[in-house]
Amino acid sequence: MTPPYYAVIFTSVRTEITEGYEEMAALMEKLAKEQDGFLGVESARNEIGITVSYWRDLESIKKWKQQTDHLQAQQKGRAVWYKNYTTRIALVEREYSFERES
Amino acid sequence: MTPPYYAVIFTSVRTEITEGYEEMAALMEKLAKEQDGFLGVESARNEIGITVSYWRDLESIKKWKQQTDHLQAQQKGRAVWYKNYTTRIALVEREYSFERES
Repeated sequence: MTPPYYAVIFTSVRTEITEGYEEMAALMEKLAKEQDGFLGVESARNEIGITVSYWRDLESIKKWKQQTDHLQAQQKGRAVWYKNYTTRIALVEREYSFERES
Repeated sequence: MTPPYYAVIFTSVRTEITEGYEEMAALMEKLAKEQDGFLGVESARNEIGITVSYWRDLESIKKWKQQTDHLQAQQKGRAVWYKNYTTRIALVEREYSFERES
């Protein structure tokens, strides 16, 4: 991807309640990928989870934040799955990559 | 933390070589925390690793990138530990948090 574009950095700590979470996470990833302006997503989890999604502009982030199914998922996240989370909206100014020669 | 500040989003895929990695990662985290302008760091790893570190400004990121021990770690990372990685420098414009009432 070529900067500038946006990253949404979502860091979270889960509750012990796992029921329904994986299905919802998979559905949200599928729906996000269908959104206009979606560029990519990467996730990892140990003690904390970090999901970084990439977007063309603030407008596409705003639309995804307000998407109906996503709003329901956010509500359920606060009610059931997350102890705490932080969302950061960040403008990616520079990007550089390394790839091993094999 | 109160925006604006910077996030360095480091995503990576490891090789199978683990020797020396954990010690180096712990040392780099310790050294980063001693840097002027360092605000915090969060990490998680499954198939990919995501480390997000937070910094006051671009100048403090630049100094950390060029710190002597860190330069050696970066070189060893490319030579031994990483199949590939991407570093993104991003300006955090907004941040919001949720914390469960307990």
